[in-house]
Amino acid sequence: MQKLEFGDLQKQCAHFLTHHGPLTARQSLTEILAATGEDERMDVYCAGTMIADFEKEVADLLGKEAAVFMPSGTMAQQIALRIHADQRRGSTVAFHPRCHLENHEDKAYQHLHHLNSVLVGSYHNLLTLADLEKVADPITALLLELPQRNLGSQLPLWDDLNAQVAWARARGAAVHMDGARLWEAQPFYQRPYAEICSMFDSVYVSFYKTLGGISGAMLLGDAAFIRQARLWMHRHGGQIIHQFPALLSARLGLRTRLPRIPDYVQRNLEIAHLLTQFDKISSIPRPPHTNMMHLALRGDRQKLEDAAYQIAIEKGIFSFYALGDTTLPDWHLWEFVTGDATLKLSLKEVEAFFAELLERAA
Amino acid sequence: MQKLEFGDLQKQCAHFLTHHGPLTARQSLTEILAATGEDERMDVYCAGTMIADFEKEVADLLGKEAAVFMPSGTMAQQIALRIHADQRRGSTVAFHPRCHLENHEDKAYQHLHHLNSVLVGSYHNLLTLADLEKVADPITALLLELPQRNLGSQLPLWDDLNAQVAWARARGAAVHMDGARLWEAQPFYQRPYAEICSMFDSVYVSFYKTLGGISGAMLLGDAAFIRQARLWMHRHGGQIIHQFPALLSARLGLRTRLPRIPDYVQRNLEIAHLLTQFDKISSIPRPPHTNMMHLALRGDRQKLEDAAYQIAIEKGIFSFYALGDTTLPDWHLWEFVTGDATLKLSLKEVEAFFAELLERAA
Repeated sequence: MQKLEFGDLQKQCAHFLTHHGPLTARQSLTEILAATGEDERMDVYCAGTMIADFEKEVADLLGKEAAVFMPSGTMAQQIALRIHADQRRGSTVAFHPRCHLENHEDKAYQHLHHLNSVLVGSYHNLLTLADLEKVADPITALLLELPQRNLGSQLPLWDDLNAQVAWARARGAAVHMDGARLWEAQPFYQRPYAEICSMFDSVYVSFYKTLGGISGAMLLGDAAFIRQARLWMHRHGGQIIHQFPALLSARLGLRTRLPRIPDYVQRNLEIAHLLTQFDKISSIPRPPHTNMMHLALRGDRQKLEDAAYQIAIEKGIFSFYALGDTTLPDWHLWEFVTGDATLKLSLKEVEAFFAELLERAA
Repeated sequence: MQKLEFGDLQKQCAHFLTHHGPLTARQSLTEILAATGEDERMDVYCAGTMIADFEKEVADLLGKEAAVFMPSGTMAQQIALRIHADQRRGSTVAFHPRCHLENHEDKAYQHLHHLNSVLVGSYHNLLTLADLEKVADPITALLLELPQRNLGSQLPLWDDLNAQVAWARARGAAVHMDGARLWEAQPFYQRPYAEICSMFDSVYVSFYKTLGGISGAMLLGDAAFIRQARLWMHRHGGQIIHQFPALLSARLGLRTRLPRIPDYVQRNLEIAHLLTQFDKISSIPRPPHTNMMHLALRGDRQKLEDAAYQIAIEKGIFSFYALGDTTLPDWHLWEFVTGDATLKLSLKEVEAFFAELLERAA
């Protein structure tokens, strides 16, 4: 079968099981244009009312003294760990083996910042206090990812989180949050964002995931920390002359999608629940903690991918294009994120999709 | 006098002596929206037709095998020098004391890449072959800025440029061009861009200066070099999920403003010529080499700034807000860039502005 490419297939579809549904460049620009005030001036080299007001808005929401908008999380997190390490006159940082810095940044923390890492916890499970207690190296910072994407957006229990933070503090280490998906953690903890962030020295959040922005990240902490972060951002090449398109879309996402997060999470739980009827589908975690879960599908991978493709072509319902690996050769992974597009489908329609997928792939 | 801030003053003005005239965020977005095809898809992590086609367009224009669009020149140039240094198993690079890497990047080349620099040439003059011949350190790369912004966008003569490049090549060093303003150099050399670039191993160009894009840079070289540059860009945090607003504006700038560069340069020469009548104004260089020159204005700095301010308030003609230093305490510097806004004014109007400025500041 000669398949259409990913983007061409999406273009054929009217419905999307996950995320918010794709936009063309024009649609995205039109969306942010409508959300921009008549007289709003461009930011200039990370200064100006537009960016300063937005940084303050997010800092207030997360209960931090200061914030800096950055082009990417890859930039923000290396910088955070470098500052914490320099302040403590060390170079060793600790994080989970599935950490973004370890797996998706070409080891920039080593190559650019000469930091060493201690990997804490097992590949398949959230980090625990018992894992931390085995660490012998003196560390300058502990990174915790809330929720942890590669484990199906799992979250530690509140008391466990507090105990891990206390462990780091007792050793003089800073605690940094990889909060790329922090926005989705609030319904699980049922506490204000500021309370969740209060135990962390620094927090990174992203605007282009569930919030649906074009791009962009923010790093938050106390004023002295953010002052240093701006210096490192400049060194990284991130003090960009104008970032207003990303900034405007981040602002729009925060205002329009943040209030919908409880709905996304609720619907994700409902979908996970209805999938328990299929013994060839398992969610990770079970039940999910946020609006995201990993779905493991049992069967022949090619048949599952072909079935999803055929449903997209015939019925205009896009689900996934390719599946990922699990430890078991007959179980295949799909990162399922409930967003605006998911909410447009009824639970009956979602259920019917999965029934048909499994039947076609049988 | 309680002055309006820079941006508020610009908002009061209908005419601008330099550049293209300011846009609000909405105006800029509207401009790129109009230049975007109905079905154009967003770039995704530096991939996709929109970005690949644009990289090829610029690579073809500059006669290079490959190109990578990057968020900033600060990112692009450190990366270029790091690759050249690593390839030659060294860490020493050479550039002029007014180099952007030395003065405007918080010494990122040292802090992130552990490169050492040899500063070649005198602060006030273009680098010469004689300067190079004094270099004792073995160097891995020579950076040449064409044209050199901080010297009033000066350019070396073609033969001098060739001799400097030959010096570096004879020592096994790579030659990198800081071509942030390369676009403006073509009328001076009267040679195709590809010929100017042909003697350089790597070239960086910018899209937000005379081309008027929102932001963005490009690094060009052979395919193996660009492959490595993409790796380092990722490490810097520059592999951004969507860059299409910057990309679309860069493309628009290249298509609409590049053809106008000869007009900008011609008008800049005419303005420099008419200013020779004022003995309190001197252009650097004299005559200018590109569409940019530094104007040194003689007089009391506060009076000159107040005069420019009053003309802006009373007549709606914006010129400068603050002046810079020169070696002489009674001469003050203004970076004068001829762009679309300058072309909208007649030479008579420009002349009248300067006459009035000097008279008011007398």
